[in-house]
Amino acid sequence: MAGNTFGQIFRITTFGESHGPGIGVVIDGCPAGISVDIDVIQKELDRRKPGQSRVTTQRKEEDQAIIQSGVFEGQSTGMPISIYIKNKDQKSKDYSHIADTYRPSHADMVYDKKYGIRDYRGGGRSSARETAARVAAGAIAKMILNQSGIEIHAGVTQVGHIKLDKNISDINWAETENNIIRCPDGETAKKMEDYIMEVKKDGDTIGGVISCHIVNVPVGLGEPVFDKLHADLAKAMLSINAVKGFEYGSGFSSVSMRGSEHNDSWENIDGQLTTKTNYSGGIQGGISNGMPIYFNVAFKPVATIMKDQASVNSEGEASTVSGKGRHDPCVVPRAVPIVEAMAALVIVDHLLRMRVNR
Amino acid sequence: MAGNTFGQIFRITTFGESHGPGIGVVIDGCPAGISVDIDVIQKELDRRKPGQSRVTTQRKEEDQAIIQSGVFEGQSTGMPISIYIKNKDQKSKDYSHIADTYRPSHADMVYDKKYGIRDYRGGGRSSARETAARVAAGAIAKMILNQSGIEIHAGVTQVGHIKLDKNISDINWAETENNIIRCPDGETAKKMEDYIMEVKKDGDTIGGVISCHIVNVPVGLGEPVFDKLHADLAKAMLSINAVKGFEYGSGFSSVSMRGSEHNDSWENIDGQLTTKTNYSGGIQGGISNGMPIYFNVAFKPVATIMKDQASVNSEGEASTVSGKGRHDPCVVPRAVPIVEAMAALVIVDHLLRMRVNR
Amino acid sequence: MAGNTFGQIFRITTFGESHGPGIGVVIDGCPAGISVDIDVIQKELDRRKPGQSRVTTQRKEEDQAIIQSGVFEGQSTGMPISIYIKNKDQKSKDYSHIADTYRPSHADMVYDKKYGIRDYRGGGRSSARETAARVAAGAIAKMILNQSGIEIHAGVTQVGHIKLDKNISDINWAETENNIIRCPDGETAKKMEDYIMEVKKDGDTIGGVISCHIVNVPVGLGEPVFDKLHADLAKAMLSINAVKGFEYGSGFSSVSMRGSEHNDSWENIDGQLTTKTNYSGGIQGGISNGMPIYFNVAFKPVATIMKDQASVNSEGEASTVSGKGRHDPCVVPRAVPIVEAMAALVIVDHLLRMRVNR
Amino acid sequence: MAGNTFGQIFRITTFGESHGPGIGVVIDGCPAGISVDIDVIQKELDRRKPGQSRVTTQRKEEDQAIIQSGVFEGQSTGMPISIYIKNKDQKSKDYSHIADTYRPSHADMVYDKKYGIRDYRGGGRSSARETAARVAAGAIAKMILNQSGIEIHAGVTQVGHIKLDKNISDINWAETENNIIRCPDGETAKKMEDYIMEVKKDGDTIGGVISCHIVNVPVGLGEPVFDKLHADLAKAMLSINAVKGFEYGSGFSSVSMRGSEHNDSWENIDGQLTTKTNYSGGIQGGISNGMPIYFNVAFKPVATIMKDQASVNSEGEASTVSGKGRHDPCVVPRAVPIVEAMAALVIVDHLLRMRVNR
Repeated sequence: MAGNTFGQIFRITTFGESHGPGIGVVIDGCPAGISVDIDVIQKELDRRKPGQSRVTTQRKEEDQAIIQSGVFEGQSTGMPISIYIKNKDQKSKDYSHIADTYRPSHADMVYDKKYGIRDYRGGGRSSARETAARVAAGAIAKMILNQSGIEIHAGVTQVGHIKLDKNISDINWAETENNIIRCPDGETAKKMEDYIMEVKKDGDTIGGVISCHIVNVPVGLGEPVFDKLHADLAKAMLSINAVKGFEYGSGFSSVSMRGSEHNDSWENIDGQLTTKTNYSGGIQGGISNGMPIYFNVAFKPVATIMKDQASVNSEGEASTVSGKGRHDPCVVPRAVPIVEAMAALVIVDHLLRMRVNR
Repeated sequence: MAGNTFGQIFRITTFGESHGPGIGVVIDGCPAGISVDIDVIQKELDRRKPGQSRVTTQRKEEDQAIIQSGVFEGQSTGMPISIYIKNKDQKSKDYSHIADTYRPSHADMVYDKKYGIRDYRGGGRSSARETAARVAAGAIAKMILNQSGIEIHAGVTQVGHIKLDKNISDINWAETENNIIRCPDGETAKKMEDYIMEVKKDGDTIGGVISCHIVNVPVGLGEPVFDKLHADLAKAMLSINAVKGFEYGSGFSSVSMRGSEHNDSWENIDGQLTTKTNYSGGIQGGISNGMPIYFNVAFKPVATIMKDQASVNSEGEASTVSGKGRHDPCVVPRAVPIVEAMAALVIVDHLLRMRVNR
Repeated sequence: MAGNTFGQIFRITTFGESHGPGIGVVIDGCPAGISVDIDVIQKELDRRKPGQSRVTTQRKEEDQAIIQSGVFEGQSTGMPISIYIKNKDQKSKDYSHIADTYRPSHADMVYDKKYGIRDYRGGGRSSARETAARVAAGAIAKMILNQSGIEIHAGVTQVGHIKLDKNISDINWAETENNIIRCPDGETAKKMEDYIMEVKKDGDTIGGVISCHIVNVPVGLGEPVFDKLHADLAKAMLSINAVKGFEYGSGFSSVSMRGSEHNDSWENIDGQLTTKTNYSGGIQGGISNGMPIYFNVAFKPVATIMKDQASVNSEGEASTVSGKGRHDPCVVPRAVPIVEAMAALVIVDHLLRMRVNR
Repeated sequence: MAGNTFGQIFRITTFGESHGPGIGVVIDGCPAGISVDIDVIQKELDRRKPGQSRVTTQRKEEDQAIIQSGVFEGQSTGMPISIYIKNKDQKSKDYSHIADTYRPSHADMVYDKKYGIRDYRGGGRSSARETAARVAAGAIAKMILNQSGIEIHAGVTQVGHIKLDKNISDINWAETENNIIRCPDGETAKKMEDYIMEVKKDGDTIGGVISCHIVNVPVGLGEPVFDKLHADLAKAMLSINAVKGFEYGSGFSSVSMRGSEHNDSWENIDGQLTTKTNYSGGIQGGISNGMPIYFNVAFKPVATIMKDQASVNSEGEASTVSGKGRHDPCVVPRAVPIVEAMAALVIVDHLLRMRVNR
């Protein structure tokens, strides 16, 4: 049973390989009457596209979104919305050298063994290019959330050992798009940029962390007992290429805290139930409690490096993977819109699911 | 759309509240011909049950599993397997004081607002008691995995600041059941036990980490692009009460690593493809690669403490939650079988899903 | 992938075999705040139970429903509702003679070959006893529908060659429960009863038709393009044991009609859009149009007859199936509440699905 | 919750409106390693396309299928297969006159009320044009079935009152494509053709029946208790535009049969279990028994007629729907490949589902 569909009510199915004719997404379950702005979709795709700055791959892709169905006179009709993005810069020859070789920490071997056949060009379906389809769908999810006043902000808070030294609630998310790192702090961004360029010079790559902050979420999103809101967020994030970890609220740091310290006391602020602290990360028992939701996503260093690596080919023979092509030295700047898109898909899905609770 | 079902092919639905007549699970999709041993189910339930040691709650529950369907003459028939566990030690009066009060960091408020009605006795459905049903289902999943030689071991590797100082591959999992902490190292377990007792004396609680290690997994489990094996594991773990974070393989530590260091080189060892290192945690591109799978799960401190806490009631008035009842000072010792059960459910589901890949 | 779950939002999973400890159903997705009356559930089960009249099997089953979860102080809580019915009159010895024999037109052979194991006692899971669980779930669905004013009426309109000679819109459904046939016309019922008794005397069985009529359905139920309201009704009906056909609105008779005759003209009656005729059966393009929905369901004669039949056993050897036991000469009188239950499940599911359309 | 997805393991999602840029389908769950022949897909689409004969609409559509993903070097890769068909002959002006009018027995009104917005051009998504996407997906399903030797044949067996007078097992399906009616009997086809032309001359339309016959189906397809093979076939057929009824095996005629007459006796023919008669239609207890599967599908007369009809517009005012455009006088000749496609989708889905039974 294949796994290219995400969501229960707002349900997306992505398709397409990095070097086939194109990639796309079908959204089934978008409510009717949503104003769909193709320019907003395009803007989100541009945030993800390669070649946008010196810290990203130099491949150029236009990633132009075309809506093929489900929108009539600027509004969603309740019918499936299909969005298609043609592949343009497909230098297939770049990949011929890896047809038989299993690159370290790539999906080459497992696809070969699982399916007995593999579209090896550029990683095929395992390429992060697939996430462009998610970003397009996420843009529509955001349009729905905006109608409810819900805002999602993600930003880079760590690159290698360089960490943004700020409490999540003190971050000024408006800063995120002011630098090419997408770190919501200019000064830290500069340090991160310098570090990435240093790593790049070495032909190497580096990991990072993206933090996400969601405000104005109504009470009640999330479904006991398996589809807890944070469980679905975790799955969404871990489904993004190169992600290795997820924590929400106090996360891993809660491990060494005591209950008396960690518990978020209730307060009635002018008729509004709030908590003094927010270690819960806006979610209790898997259900949003109205406080800001926040979480961290850990990204490993990109596996494609500009150095020769010893490996094995599909015949089991020793071979060398040489460092060719154009790749990101650090994936997090371009992954910020992807994190936001996946978060938006989860939130909008649960927003719709909540409608049938009572 | 409710969320009490987990899995795609091996699909479980749990039901029941902590203080209703009982809890249970229906497994739909268990293949026919599996030998089902009720004693093994019972043994797993006993690992999870309250009152088993001085570091757990002193509530006594027998948690006796009854198979109601789907097993004939000791074998699964391919029909739904229903397992039921009667609630016995239901001191409902213990909970009357919280009928109107929103306990800090509990699900009281969100259930009230979401559903407009709440079975407040002992947390009702939001109680960790629900996980007994998962453990019962997980026991059957393990029976299937054992037939394939797949082994799942979980153990406590951190309590508060006390951390097991061992590489995951060096852990002797056979040690786990030799102490009441379920830490796979006797010496560390002793320190953890002392610490938990100290915390308990304070009427407080403490968090912890459970690590899980899965071996003999065949190549090919996990479905691109959303149902990556680790994405489903993440969701499974985050769906467990009190879990705040998940990381697999190198996890959050990968963030500060370079690609040249993090990449797992392929080797051909006597015809077997293996990797020199295993930062990938046995999963590449979301698909198992045959190497050991491992991950960490962060648990927050239990929210119920034996201290008075300021809170708010359902009318929005200030109120006090007094520390009564019998609860766990640290949840991780009893959560070990739950982590194993959820892992087993994910692995068996993907094992079955793999059958239709080609 | 097993098939014991029905519905998308109001989702039921049934379990249990005819001669195991009991049967049951878990309803996931019942909205919170529904008044749940156990007596109403019991009343529906009593309409379905064996031994209720001389035209049904003489087996006695009490079929007492127990609610195990999801209802608190008489109201649904939004949590899974589990209903359990113990098996009482399990004369397992009655079935020992068929352990190895494949009864004609039963599921014995196919279960054996499909699963390699079979709970042969009374047909196990393939027994129509399973439908009691559906009736219990359908009773809760009806409680929700009643709140919306939607009414579902089914009745027997044909037994063998004896047909109720009335237009569907002229039927007085209140008559249905006034006779043991559940034919909404006393005179025809008497003829049907005489005929069934005649067939029974021969040790034989006979087929029949149940018609169903649903009124006060709002405009908009049904989802293009696959989950058309009538497509889901068709599946629901065909999933009932012994059903061989389904038609809605004009049904098979539409085949020889011309478009000019068959088209339902729109009329504006005091601001209410209605159609002059209703060949559409209240559904257009798969979506309810506010007019009465009606359909027919064809039931074959029960396969268990009181005559010896030549057959083959599991070894492929010729054998004789002797006519023993207590069975229905005609299934339709007891199937009326089953048809209503399945219809209610479909309608309530689509009523909830409609909430996320716009 | 929208309904544009069909199938559990071999799962298709269709998208696109009749007068938008195009229509398409994404197939998720096609096993890897299937030889995919674009010409075969095209051939099936050509059987469905308008303008192919004098008994069909004179609209010309090329319906050229383009594979956008999931096929590499002629083989399926296990990744989603996306097939796209551009709309060509979109005379949108033809439909401007119905923007505000509710055509009798069309989906205009219900779409308007359900979604509050409607792509009125040519029926938008409710147009039978959507079924081209199903035919494309069904062609791939057939490729898989052919590998297993399973053959699906459908043909027109009734048009208006003209009925093919043959037992289903005596039909020579090879005849179906020899006439423009797709009736598997030349003589009857001629009568049907004459009758359709007569109806067409009147500016009217007529209904019909398509019968379907499936051979070489292995024992074991179909899942108790809801996803019975015939229940899924019923849903599949009723999801096709203009279908009003479904019956399998003895169908509605079983109603007046006795059990002793209707039961299919088992025979051991050279080690092969077969039944003397096949009133069961190859399915028992919802599971295929190896005998031929057969069923009938009733189609109503097409709602678009070349006559003026009184109706109501979206304002509730009386209006006239004038008979314009180019439409089919009888839908069944072009619906034959659609019935086959939907049947193929059901069979292949259950063929894959069977792999996880034991």
